Amino acid sequence: MKISFIGAGRVANHLAKVLSEHHQIVQIFSRNLEKAQWLANQVQAEAIADFKSIHANIDLMIIAVSDQSIADVIGQISPYLKDVCIVHTSGSTHLNILGEKHEKSGVFYPLQTFSLEREIDWKNTPLFVEAMNEQDLACLLDLANSLSNRVYSYSSEQRLSLHLAAVFACNFSNYCCDMAKQIVDDKHVDFSLLYPLIEETAHKALVNDPKDMQTGPAMRGDENIIHMHTNMLKQDQREDLKAVYQLLSQQILQRHQ
Amino acid sequence: MKISFIGAGRVANHLAKVLSEHHQIVQIFSRNLEKAQWLANQVQAEAIADFKSIHANIDLMIIAVSDQSIADVIGQISPYLKDVCIVHTSGSTHLNILGEKHEKSGVFYPLQTFSLEREIDWKNTPLFVEAMNEQDLACLLDLANSLSNRVYSYSSEQRLSLHLAAVFACNFSNYCCDMAKQIVDDKHVDFSLLYPLIEETAHKALVNDPKDMQTGPAMRGDENIIHMHTNMLKQDQREDLKAVYQLLSQQILQRHQ
Repeated sequence: MKISFIGAGRVANHLAKVLSEHHQIVQIFSRNLEKAQWLANQVQAEAIADFKSIHANIDLMIIAVSDQSIADVIGQISPYLKDVCIVHTSGSTHLNILGEKHEKSGVFYPLQTFSLEREIDWKNTPLFVEAMNEQDLACLLDLANSLSNRVYSYSSEQRLSLHLAAVFACNFSNYCCDMAKQIVDDKHVDFSLLYPLIEETAHKALVNDPKDMQTGPAMRGDENIIHMHTNMLKQDQREDLKAVYQLLSQQILQRHQ
Repeated sequence: MKISFIGAGRVANHLAKVLSEHHQIVQIFSRNLEKAQWLANQVQAEAIADFKSIHANIDLMIIAVSDQSIADVIGQISPYLKDVCIVHTSGSTHLNILGEKHEKSGVFYPLQTFSLEREIDWKNTPLFVEAMNEQDLACLLDLANSLSNRVYSYSSEQRLSLHLAAVFACNFSNYCCDMAKQIVDDKHVDFSLLYPLIEETAHKALVNDPKDMQTGPAMRGDENIIHMHTNMLKQDQREDLKAVYQLLSQQILQRHQ
């Protein structure tokens, strides 16, 4: 397949490199021509910084830009690529954002944390594929299956729910650790003392239903301890942490009563 | 040392067994005599179910009962054990709870999740020791050092802050995974797709300051995505999850602005 990219950031870098092994990368677009050139050199492609220079003679255009730029980009490039399938690589953008402006559009979303230094294990990376029409879907599924053993044809609604769930399971869990560290730092207690408990907690939530793995004062309905903890946070003037403690404890209590 | 136990639950079981290797376990008390007998048999001790049968000729009494029973137990056994050091094993009970009722009292708290099936790696289990007087503290430190390489002499305030931090880092993180699973279950999406991200998140929070590892829409200040997520939860009538999403996002935004 002949494939071009809009964007030369982390996702474009990883995706262009692995796709260049079996496909021809035609152009890399970035507003920053130097950035486009850097990636283009590695995948034997042409670097461009102007939408007018886009070649229409390709099979697939991959938009790998920030979520908020996707709608703008598709509006600008669609006129040059009437018969070309255009996909975005975002977990949190509905297919309709492309579909409204371009008939042959789709999604090609790898569920991974990308950093420039680290190699991606593509075979085990879940890939989510979606398209406005069946022909494009078949083509994207072929491409996805050549990369990964874990290809899913989920709807936008399903993909978006996965992304929302990741906010809870990853971003919010991390913030829970951040709050924990603030509590012990304040009393000059070593945060690393909690490492074994944190590891065990994550491990247990992965091999069982996390609902069944719930422990702690709220789960036990231990009002004395909840009252004591709330007072401790109040005395330390941590109204922010107290609000979180109360809301989550109340919900855990209700879920397990 | 001659040591007796009040309680025959998980903590008493693990602690009595490992201490019996180098010390004499004299009595095991439980209101359930059968339970006391089961443990007593394994550590060559006498099982009792009546406080009046307590032998005073011991060096240490370890109270390993539920948090809310500690104050009651110390009141009942103190008259029989005037010259004996009495400790509790709780992470969330202040030393003063014992100190008010018994002069020679202390804390011997192992930071571990105890289950009856699993062996404890005592050498690497953090032990927290505290006492009302210096002589008892020295004695408890000796005992602790014979068990573990990680012995800490923290104040009650410090120990309680560690326990509160564990509620955030363990109980609340687990609830975040529970909420995530509810979100994907509702859309028939496989929760195990999130496993690699959850593992990576826990791993990163242990090798860096979790504040620096924060990611996600709130951290980036991405109001569009936050708005979309809030709407998704509202449409699915998940007011509980929406309340958590809004509170935590708002706090993460403030912390990283």
